[in-house]
Amino acid sequence: MKATFDEYMLEKKKQIEQDIISHTQVESTPEELQQSMHYSLAAGGKRLRPILLYASYETYANRSSRVRNVALALEMIHTYSLIHDDLPALDNDDYRRGKKTNHKVFDESTAILAGDALLTHSFHLIATDDELTDQEKVQLITWLTEASGPAGMVAGQILDIKAENSEVSLHTLEKIHALKTGKLISFAVQAGAYLGGATEEQQQHLQTFSHFLGVLFQIQDDILDITGDVEKMGKPIGSDAENNKSTYPVILGLEKAIEYRDYYLKEALAALEHAQADHYYMKDLTEYFTERDY
Amino acid sequence: MKATFDEYMLEKKKQIEQDIISHTQVESTPEELQQSMHYSLAAGGKRLRPILLYASYETYANRSSRVRNVALALEMIHTYSLIHDDLPALDNDDYRRGKKTNHKVFDESTAILAGDALLTHSFHLIATDDELTDQEKVQLITWLTEASGPAGMVAGQILDIKAENSEVSLHTLEKIHALKTGKLISFAVQAGAYLGGATEEQQQHLQTFSHFLGVLFQIQDDILDITGDVEKMGKPIGSDAENNKSTYPVILGLEKAIEYRDYYLKEALAALEHAQADHYYMKDLTEYFTERDY
Repeated sequence: MKATFDEYMLEKKKQIEQDIISHTQVESTPEELQQSMHYSLAAGGKRLRPILLYASYETYANRSSRVRNVALALEMIHTYSLIHDDLPALDNDDYRRGKKTNHKVFDESTAILAGDALLTHSFHLIATDDELTDQEKVQLITWLTEASGPAGMVAGQILDIKAENSEVSLHTLEKIHALKTGKLISFAVQAGAYLGGATEEQQQHLQTFSHFLGVLFQIQDDILDITGDVEKMGKPIGSDAENNKSTYPVILGLEKAIEYRDYYLKEALAALEHAQADHYYMKDLTEYFTERDY
Repeated sequence: MKATFDEYMLEKKKQIEQDIISHTQVESTPEELQQSMHYSLAAGGKRLRPILLYASYETYANRSSRVRNVALALEMIHTYSLIHDDLPALDNDDYRRGKKTNHKVFDESTAILAGDALLTHSFHLIATDDELTDQEKVQLITWLTEASGPAGMVAGQILDIKAENSEVSLHTLEKIHALKTGKLISFAVQAGAYLGGATEEQQQHLQTFSHFLGVLFQIQDDILDITGDVEKMGKPIGSDAENNKSTYPVILGLEKAIEYRDYYLKEALAALEHAQADHYYMKDLTEYFTERDY
């Protein structure tokens, strides 16, 4: 019997969190470095990126053990980016998901190095995977370095920092988010579909889909910073406004931002249908991206 | 006619610095990030790691274009590690090689992100190389992530930081350096020999060789901090002592440190002979590692 969406989310989250425990004990890694890497990886979070990768893969294939390491590698890269983003020189955040940030628990030097270690180790996980062919590994590493590197996530991070305390246009805001969060979300969808054996045409439609998904994810994030519940969010509400951050509601107003989000949802679901991926959990997940309250 | 060793060093250095210019213009990378990445990569240095990779490869094969991207990737990883090492939270250095460190020219956030970008892009360079097979790429990325990750260079960096301001034993000192600098030096030798088609047995002997080479490199570094010329070094002399850093001369005394270095040189050259690699430039390079005055 097919699991409900809630059961599916829970099952995947559990799988990912088990893998985090078993795979972050890197042999010969100094105790404190290991603790610091593990602390942020295990600090919770919705695990949306790896779950999305699983769901994309399972739309086209079974034997999800094939994507376990890639999903974990993706979560490691996401986690490294949060650790570095929270540093005093960047966003200077003391809390994330209701817990102290890495450099507040350990120290700044350990946090910087733990981020470096997670980034490096993520590619190691893919390169040494038993279930993937060399061709698949090379393709995945090519995409993942593109998505997370100087023309991807890191580009988004620097543009985001430079845009602080200045008014940005909707166009610039979309560009920043497309790089900073969109690229890894697209990678999740792309990697899953590729390993699952989706056709070229299906992969094309999924690229369109993940563009819309990335934008709606960000709009919802911005909306939650206004309408969210402090307990559920694990961080103060209104921090974007306090930090003079440009957000969708700031530029468009809250009502218009919600309209935008729902427009992107409609477009995302249409693209999903074109990719014959609107069954299984991809559709639920897309709606969850929109409706989540934390 | 065979080039002299000096000509060889110069030619390789020129090649590597040309590649730095042509390969660090990553498309769609924000201007400031690109400048920051390029600044540290182009800021000089002896290029010893990539030259060692070339020399190791050319001991067994021609067509050195096969290792160009790997050599550049290695220099990128070395450079990222220097940028992060120089940060205020780590060594807090304002100068390196006579030039301002990355975070002094740009800012701390840009320096952190430029390091992240260089690290990520180095794997991209290998994954997208035209001259390597998928099998070779996967092997190289496996080794390089091992050498530079949480059980390699980053482990050495954290142990080094934790050892500051405390007396360490010779044993601990050797462990720190084996990880912090030895691992990447070993990768250079190993990657070159593997791509050049050295036999398993030759590769074994080269592993022994690069262990000795790594140690003698570090001892010479420590010696130069006492006996070096400030102009040639591009940094103040005696800074190790000032920072209460444990070094070979501090633990052993200068004379004994020189004896140690020469012992390791002898052992390194013997291993090189066993690997039938004591012709071409490997022997000269080993002696250069020992005799260099900056």
